[in-house]
Amino acid sequence: MTDTFYMKRALKLARRGEGRVSPNPMVGAVIVKDGRIIGEGYHERYGEDHAEVNAIRKAVGTIEGATFYITLEPCCHFGKTPPCVESLIACRPARVVIGTTDPNPLVAGRGIEALHREGIATVVGILERDCRELNEVFFKFIQTGMPFVTLKFAQTLDGRIATATGHSQWISGLSARRYAHRLRACHDAVLVGVGTVSADDPELTVRHVKGRNPLPIVLDSKLSISLSAKVLRKRNGRHPLLVTTERADPEKRTLLAKAGIEALVVAGDSRARVDLKAALAELGKRNLSSILIEGGATVATSVLQSGLADRLIVIIAPKIVGRGIESVGDLGIRRMDHALAVSWRKITRRGGDLILDGRITPEDKE
Amino acid sequence: MTDTFYMKRALKLARRGEGRVSPNPMVGAVIVKDGRIIGEGYHERYGEDHAEVNAIRKAVGTIEGATFYITLEPCCHFGKTPPCVESLIACRPARVVIGTTDPNPLVAGRGIEALHREGIATVVGILERDCRELNEVFFKFIQTGMPFVTLKFAQTLDGRIATATGHSQWISGLSARRYAHRLRACHDAVLVGVGTVSADDPELTVRHVKGRNPLPIVLDSKLSISLSAKVLRKRNGRHPLLVTTERADPEKRTLLAKAGIEALVVAGDSRARVDLKAALAELGKRNLSSILIEGGATVATSVLQSGLADRLIVIIAPKIVGRGIESVGDLGIRRMDHALAVSWRKITRRGGDLILDGRITPEDKE
Repeated sequence: MTDTFYMKRALKLARRGEGRVSPNPMVGAVIVKDGRIIGEGYHERYGEDHAEVNAIRKAVGTIEGATFYITLEPCCHFGKTPPCVESLIACRPARVVIGTTDPNPLVAGRGIEALHREGIATVVGILERDCRELNEVFFKFIQTGMPFVTLKFAQTLDGRIATATGHSQWISGLSARRYAHRLRACHDAVLVGVGTVSADDPELTVRHVKGRNPLPIVLDSKLSISLSAKVLRKRNGRHPLLVTTERADPEKRTLLAKAGIEALVVAGDSRARVDLKAALAELGKRNLSSILIEGGATVATSVLQSGLADRLIVIIAPKIVGRGIESVGDLGIRRMDHALAVSWRKITRRGGDLILDGRITPEDKE
Repeated sequence: MTDTFYMKRALKLARRGEGRVSPNPMVGAVIVKDGRIIGEGYHERYGEDHAEVNAIRKAVGTIEGATFYITLEPCCHFGKTPPCVESLIACRPARVVIGTTDPNPLVAGRGIEALHREGIATVVGILERDCRELNEVFFKFIQTGMPFVTLKFAQTLDGRIATATGHSQWISGLSARRYAHRLRACHDAVLVGVGTVSADDPELTVRHVKGRNPLPIVLDSKLSISLSAKVLRKRNGRHPLLVTTERADPEKRTLLAKAGIEALVVAGDSRARVDLKAALAELGKRNLSSILIEGGATVATSVLQSGLADRLIVIIAPKIVGRGIESVGDLGIRRMDHALAVSWRKITRRGGDLILDGRITPEDKE
């Protein structure tokens, strides 16, 4: 079997940590000796052992002389756990194959150097693209301090998120809604505008699948949110977070504070709404590495216009509703060749719904 | 090999006639003897020999005792060619396997009866659904006299067919545009509203692929079309057809008539525009069995609202343009559960574009 084969296995193991390890990266490790996998593991939960250590613990027989496959360069600093590279060296493997180097400035090639110093052969860059994509959230966060932003909305075929009267339940089918909940479980926070709270009174929790609830965040420049909104309820011992501006009603702020709900004040934008970039920077400082933005149209339009979305997920229901509330509002684009270009990474069907998962690309490539 | 295997082959052959046999059906035939295909054929071109006759002509060795596979019940009347069932009987096959009975009231089971009378074993209904879908255009036309209607539009991800300033070229990429031309080649006529002619001055011809040009039809209730519109040019010895109402300017009508262009007058609808159903009925009488409606938004909205579309094709470009001209206008739908439901038959990617091919279903099934 080739290095690629075992690295694929390590990638598959790594993905099992999805939604449980953030803001750490997902990592998988496989130990191979005499053409047999003698141990494997992955980073299972934030704060617990790393992939390499789990693989070593589960290994059958002696590891000396074996080959290690790891999706990400082993860490060499003390974080929540001792450095993995030390544990690795102690096993005396003959060879270490690494998917991608670590973008974390505290590690950055130093894990590989440590292996070199010990005379252990290393290969770097097997399935590198896959290994980088796996942890794109972690990579962005560690390099910029800004959370990775996923913009998601569900619309009809003709681009509506509600009828003209505002009726919107349900656009997509149960299977697509399950997917949407899985998406919530894989993000640190889920963010909506106060308009969505007034219109739909969403809970923003994970119900249709198993998984942890993300932190609910509401953009609310004047703190006009209803105190009875479902999203304000304390869940898993955590209150939601409101993001507001100087225009916030001070009395309402006091009232919310008494109920244990924080209203974070950030700068306003040109239209006196919460400045999204400033808000995201603050959320990054609070160690929220990934934010799922669920709309509505006003927030979605701002995110697209300001170029802040890293990932775009559009669920298209097999429905035509005609004139109604548009998924995306005015972007100031006057020519078709100036449209925002999207490149699809993955397209799946769930029931009649289509789930389009892509990235906004800097310019139209066609 | 099973009956299904050979019927699949016959279906594959039948499809080769696409865009060349209308308003006849596409038909394929395979002759099998001693487990070997000894002859095969399909209906290649309107007015020429039918599939069975082509298969017989190409057969190697004697057909007596063989099994015939035909996607559609053989005809038993004199049309452009002698009845196929006679040619079939003359060959003395042991068995005839038929995909589906013929919906044509002139045939309707009489081909099968004739085989029975001659003591030839027949099996009907192998891959029946596929065989019916293959000729859905023919089936509808022969049973109702109304043309089969395909509504097609290309839009951005957010449901726009142009920017707010009307700029629309191009929404989809070259590969999807090629597909759109192939679609034209497979329809007897292509229809647009006069608004599209004013805005885009389309030629409505088949250029990006090989294939015959459909008859261009323009809905123009007042005959306001510009005499220099490209679509008015004579092509392949044929003039386009205008469909208008009593409101048509008589002088313009005379002017057009002098140029050889007919303006067909039909009833107006409640908004004094061409009544689509009346127009389609007239087009059916002229032996146009399939109409591709290419828009714009006004015509598309009317077609959807009046429930006249048999097939819906939406090309979604990987672009977001924000506020602009919507693909579908007001349908008077106020609740999401009253939206028109679409069931997808086929979804393909061409470059970054998605081609969604479906049917409007009577009600939401989920």
